[in-house]
Amino acid sequence: MNNQNSSFEVVASGTGDPYLLTPGPLTTSETVKQAMLHDYGSRDNDFIDLNQRVLDRLVEMVDGASSHVAVPLQGSGTFVVEAMIGCFVPRDGKLLICVNGAYGHRIASMCQYYQRSYLIQESNEETPIDINELDRRLSEDESITHVAVVYCETTSGILNPIKEISEVVKKHHRGFLIDAMSAFGALPLSSKDVHFDAVVASSNKCLEGAPGMGFCIAREEAIEVTQGNAMSLSLDLYDQWTAMKKNRQWRFTPPTHVLLAFNQALNEFDDEGGVEGRGQRYQSNCDILVKGMRDMGFETLLPDKLQAPIIITFHMPRDSRFEFSAFYDRLREMGYVIYPGKLTIADSFRVGCIGRLDETQMRGVLATIRLYLDRLGLEGRVS
Amino acid sequence: MNNQNSSFEVVASGTGDPYLLTPGPLTTSETVKQAMLHDYGSRDNDFIDLNQRVLDRLVEMVDGASSHVAVPLQGSGTFVVEAMIGCFVPRDGKLLICVNGAYGHRIASMCQYYQRSYLIQESNEETPIDINELDRRLSEDESITHVAVVYCETTSGILNPIKEISEVVKKHHRGFLIDAMSAFGALPLSSKDVHFDAVVASSNKCLEGAPGMGFCIAREEAIEVTQGNAMSLSLDLYDQWTAMKKNRQWRFTPPTHVLLAFNQALNEFDDEGGVEGRGQRYQSNCDILVKGMRDMGFETLLPDKLQAPIIITFHMPRDSRFEFSAFYDRLREMGYVIYPGKLTIADSFRVGCIGRLDETQMRGVLATIRLYLDRLGLEGRVS
Repeated sequence: MNNQNSSFEVVASGTGDPYLLTPGPLTTSETVKQAMLHDYGSRDNDFIDLNQRVLDRLVEMVDGASSHVAVPLQGSGTFVVEAMIGCFVPRDGKLLICVNGAYGHRIASMCQYYQRSYLIQESNEETPIDINELDRRLSEDESITHVAVVYCETTSGILNPIKEISEVVKKHHRGFLIDAMSAFGALPLSSKDVHFDAVVASSNKCLEGAPGMGFCIAREEAIEVTQGNAMSLSLDLYDQWTAMKKNRQWRFTPPTHVLLAFNQALNEFDDEGGVEGRGQRYQSNCDILVKGMRDMGFETLLPDKLQAPIIITFHMPRDSRFEFSAFYDRLREMGYVIYPGKLTIADSFRVGCIGRLDETQMRGVLATIRLYLDRLGLEGRVS
Repeated sequence: MNNQNSSFEVVASGTGDPYLLTPGPLTTSETVKQAMLHDYGSRDNDFIDLNQRVLDRLVEMVDGASSHVAVPLQGSGTFVVEAMIGCFVPRDGKLLICVNGAYGHRIASMCQYYQRSYLIQESNEETPIDINELDRRLSEDESITHVAVVYCETTSGILNPIKEISEVVKKHHRGFLIDAMSAFGALPLSSKDVHFDAVVASSNKCLEGAPGMGFCIAREEAIEVTQGNAMSLSLDLYDQWTAMKKNRQWRFTPPTHVLLAFNQALNEFDDEGGVEGRGQRYQSNCDILVKGMRDMGFETLLPDKLQAPIIITFHMPRDSRFEFSAFYDRLREMGYVIYPGKLTIADSFRVGCIGRLDETQMRGVLATIRLYLDRLGLEGRVS
């Protein structure tokens, strides 16, 4: 074992930690983490100004400066997804959820808690949402008031046709809600192309901040009519929005350090060329990873045209010598944290390509995997 | 002005930031902030172990190792207060809220969102909860299933008689829920002395971590029967607890950096001698501050016996030359952030004495205030 490792050193990020090739939390830059070395008062002007800059930037990111507003929320991504559902779907509304993975099902679970009416239009985890079926359902059921979809379903890594879906929803004059958690910042999402009532994402994920807050970007006309819908004080986005309009402050203690990190992460996002630059790096990461893994005989769940450059699902190799937990541990030891699968349809594992990672880490994890296969006597190739 | 300042330098914490003499977010130690310089995977064993250690420690803090469990939650303190109310008060329950400030009223607001039945027993903001009235109300109204109280009401800084309240509630066999947000870690709270179903607090406040998560410490027998009560997926403490029992992981992305800071903050809490040591430092801060302010003619809202050593409310001086926003700005410039008042009954401001602050900062802010009064021509004394 020592001998086999001789040409390899354990790698680690600048802070000595393994690289996170997961759907999040992710590896962030050292400068993003260093931004957290300060204590800010949440009602102090410096913090209030920084908060405003962050929100303005998020709105700009969807080309919504004159039409949209951004509302931040404490908690994980799920918190702000739930807040969006509770706020935008009125108590007598009915939500059609386009589901092709666990995160779509999670929205259904939220509706159950809230006792909101909902329907599910389900596709297989390796199949994008069917536009024609959506069109038919909206034609047939006039009681559906809103449609929700997950932009990139992290369950499989599949990309849903968000623009086409928005066009169908708009044609039928229904509200459109997007969970863009793992896509926002890396995949295009302009309010000029995609007509939505609200989109939610988090500080972590493709914007490469620290986890601990999410945000909702809403059409102002759509959020204006949501008063009284929310079922939770903490998750009431309307209340958060109106309170913040008055005094530019969060209603309840914000995660100040996470916000400082987010501000720095957005600076670095701009420096990289925004959605285009970041999306290119992730696409390159994805391409290197997929090609390298295929060269070793691994198979992706998805064909390339459905694959978002966010996280890639690989079928578990059939060779009995390959055992996932040992594989995971070995990669972890060598400095790379990957992720178990979440599919219901196939045994799989996932490797993420987002966060502060580039070609170096992608080639590094590939070399480590190859070495591991050699150790198993597979001579660099599974089947 | 330059001349007047000649003997004073602008002070700042080790990171160049002003000291936060507020109810939170607070000044934390440099080592607590440095703990956030690492990216951990939330499903990786190192993080899972660290999370477990944090939770075990919280349970120990209330002497509950064999009887109580700790459940963490993303978000601010308000999120976990709401989660506690939603989880522990059943849908057909009725909550009596003992109110003497804004945080008590906030619990009533949560009940309105949840459409839970509730009653308010209100005292003036400068008056502790009346035990005899509570006893009478519980005798008269058998439909009350739970009682909630705020341990230290940050609105005024008043200490409520938590032990005596718990005895009355226990005598009547009702559930007891405590919002100990700004008290936990600095004021005694043992499950051996105070019989409670659940208590909530946050990583920030007296435990001196970064804001971004809260926790609930519950009697296991009490949380066991809460399945199905919660009105929100994200805030479902029962679901968070049972999921974490299974795999020791958070259901949804935890604020990993905040948790790393919290772990470090708990190490430093232990080093300081736990509740006793921390409570002594805060009491000393409070004593120095109150004496110094009184020497300058400022009056506290509360008599000493009702004053928690957390945050002190001062009456606004009557002298027309004293103007709060200029006073705030001047202190801010000199390195001390104080807090506006929140009272409904009197014009006031607040100065906190929690967070990584000691005698040096207390004497520093006093000297700065004295200098400010001199500049106003008040010769070091308001009236």
